Amino acid sequence: MSQSLFLLPGDGIGTEIMAEVEKLIAWTNETGLTDFIIDRGLAGGVAYDAHGVAITDGDVTKALAADAVLFGAVGGPKWDDVPYDQRPEAALLRLRKELAVFANLRPAICYPALADSSSLKRELVEGLDILIVRELTGGVYFGEPKTITELGNGQKRAIDTQVYESYEIDRIARVAFDLARTRGSRVHSADKKNVMKSGVLWDEVVKGVAKDYPDVALEHILADNAAMQLVRTPKQFDVMVTDNLFGDILSDVAAMLTGSLGMLPSASLGSPDPVTGKRKAFYEPVHGSAPDIMGKGIANPIAMIASFAMALRYSFNMLELADRVENAIADVLEDGLRTADIAQGDDRVIGTQEMGAAILAKLKA
Amino acid sequence: MSQSLFLLPGDGIGTEIMAEVEKLIAWTNETGLTDFIIDRGLAGGVAYDAHGVAITDGDVTKALAADAVLFGAVGGPKWDDVPYDQRPEAALLRLRKELAVFANLRPAICYPALADSSSLKRELVEGLDILIVRELTGGVYFGEPKTITELGNGQKRAIDTQVYESYEIDRIARVAFDLARTRGSRVHSADKKNVMKSGVLWDEVVKGVAKDYPDVALEHILADNAAMQLVRTPKQFDVMVTDNLFGDILSDVAAMLTGSLGMLPSASLGSPDPVTGKRKAFYEPVHGSAPDIMGKGIANPIAMIASFAMALRYSFNMLELADRVENAIADVLEDGLRTADIAQGDDRVIGTQEMGAAILAKLKA
Ligand SMILES: CC(C)[C@H](C(=O)O)[C@@H](O)C(=O)O
Ligand SMILES: CC(C)[C@H](C(=O)O)[C@@H](O)C(=O)O
Repeated sequence: MSQSLFLLPGDGIGTEIMAEVEKLIAWTNETGLTDFIIDRGLAGGVAYDAHGVAITDGDVTKALAADAVLFGAVGGPKWDDVPYDQRPEAALLRLRKELAVFANLRPAICYPALADSSSLKRELVEGLDILIVRELTGGVYFGEPKTITELGNGQKRAIDTQVYESYEIDRIARVAFDLARTRGSRVHSADKKNVMKSGVLWDEVVKGVAKDYPDVALEHILADNAAMQLVRTPKQFDVMVTDNLFGDILSDVAAMLTGSLGMLPSASLGSPDPVTGKRKAFYEPVHGSAPDIMGKGIANPIAMIASFAMALRYSFNMLELADRVENAIADVLEDGLRTADIAQGDDRVIGTQEMGAAILAKLKA
Repeated sequence: MSQSLFLLPGDGIGTEIMAEVEKLIAWTNETGLTDFIIDRGLAGGVAYDAHGVAITDGDVTKALAADAVLFGAVGGPKWDDVPYDQRPEAALLRLRKELAVFANLRPAICYPALADSSSLKRELVEGLDILIVRELTGGVYFGEPKTITELGNGQKRAIDTQVYESYEIDRIARVAFDLARTRGSRVHSADKKNVMKSGVLWDEVVKGVAKDYPDVALEHILADNAAMQLVRTPKQFDVMVTDNLFGDILSDVAAMLTGSLGMLPSASLGSPDPVTGKRKAFYEPVHGSAPDIMGKGIANPIAMIASFAMALRYSFNMLELADRVENAIADVLEDGLRTADIAQGDDRVIGTQEMGAAILAKLKA
């Protein structure tokens, strides 16, 4: 039975890296490993240029109908001055919200072949494997009021609102605990309960959920301390669950530690449909649209390809194929192939297409 | 003319490290270098144990009357279950708010003698000297509503509110630009203007203030990217100005990078009084109360002593004495003296009192 993928390459290097995934899918389709039907849309600045909006209702509808969405990256200086509601990021935020993909999984793994490119000492990051589970559809990103008001005399007041309800914390905590069971069985929950009421509720609900997982060890950590500890001794962490805003920052720190930033994928998942069991899903690299290198053919396609591997795993239960794609990535790295972002010293540097082709070649082998 | 210092050692190691500062002050007073009148109060868990509140109104009044407040650290597991409004941190938040010390200066410097104790590679942190300027009396720490509401069925809703008005951003930006002029003349302003309205206003006001400082280079950076860049290439930064919550996290990351966490002081300053020109001021180490090592005599007093040096500099304009204290600290480190937290390999480890005495001996020399 065929399955539908909706591709939103977005801006900057998005198109280039998505092209490599498309080649890979073309091959898995040809060989009968998969039967994906592909559709494509516009998101971010390119959508604004074409239609005057960050994403059209039509493309949102297609994303809602697809079995999984693959997303590249959005944004760039070209759109710095577009109206706030149509800025490139608005596409991402709208998709997250409408797809209700509340569970953002951000693995921070250090590829052994790249341990030296971390800014941290090798022994601190070698073998690093952290999974950040970030709440993605609540908190200060979406809470109302969210306004700027004129107060007269040139003064303004800006308000953002951090809101969490118990059920939102409960469901993301369960995702974290479930995933911890498939890994090291340890969860750190990060909040600022010492200054935020949402942190107090966060901690209370997470501790309640933990009772259903007596086999998983839960530790509370303040978000500021979590950021420090990630830098100090990152390997102390297994799974870290946190809210939307802290997750944004902590997952970026974790990603940067690995020395593999251009390599890291993410998955954003909704709740399973009560009837079909299917969950909406959205896959994107952790890195951004890198407008400075767009069109040069030098972007690293690995994070995008690894995001596709996550789709195989989480949306299509094709665990073996997901493993094969991930192993192909590890193999080309072991072979010493490097795009510019991960090259060191006198590594031979290859471009986006060569890297995509090398991974595909490993897959075929 | 004598000047008043109000000491709030707080909990945990606070008492031990404050004792070393007191010895130092006793000597500067004796020699006539200073003429400080010292008073002492209780803050945090110790105040709760004595009076049932995180800090008494009487001690807040004394803090308001003093020329400068020296604060140790608050908190510990002993007070995990006290009522929210009286938790140890409430003392700190109340003092910041009532003193209106909106400008929190957090230098992150890497002492050359300690560059190897950073988790980052030596060459990335050697010579590091970043100043984080954190807004301290606004934002999500203090915005209303800040509530937890029962919704029935065991569900609750928690709300925190991030509020900034133009004048709050304007004044902290000016502090950052003024300080940048005394250093590298570069300011990074960090916010999440791509998702937060307070970020939009933040950026707008900071860019407006920048017009008054044509000699200072301003760069905008998203807070998540700032966290990453701090880990990747920290030496790219000179001064970084940001809001209360981002400042909490980013300053902790910056502090941890230096390998000198137990060594870093901070100053929190109010606006100059229109008549006297005096500004309320509050000095505290960046590190916490470390309840696990309290009473063992092994805590590192350097951050507390360096906080006193900041008081000499910013509250009393005793620049030469401030330099002398800071040089004394650098000297004992060059001599290889280490408390446990900064010891490596076969360093000889000394205790809190020995470290305090060694610094005082250098001062006398
Ligand atoms: C682009 C931006 C809106 C987004 C976020 O803040 O969530 C990004 O930083 C991320 O982490 O996916
Ligand atoms: C103790 C806590 C309330 C405080 C804060 O969050 O501001 C601390 O982390 C700090 O950075 O001074």
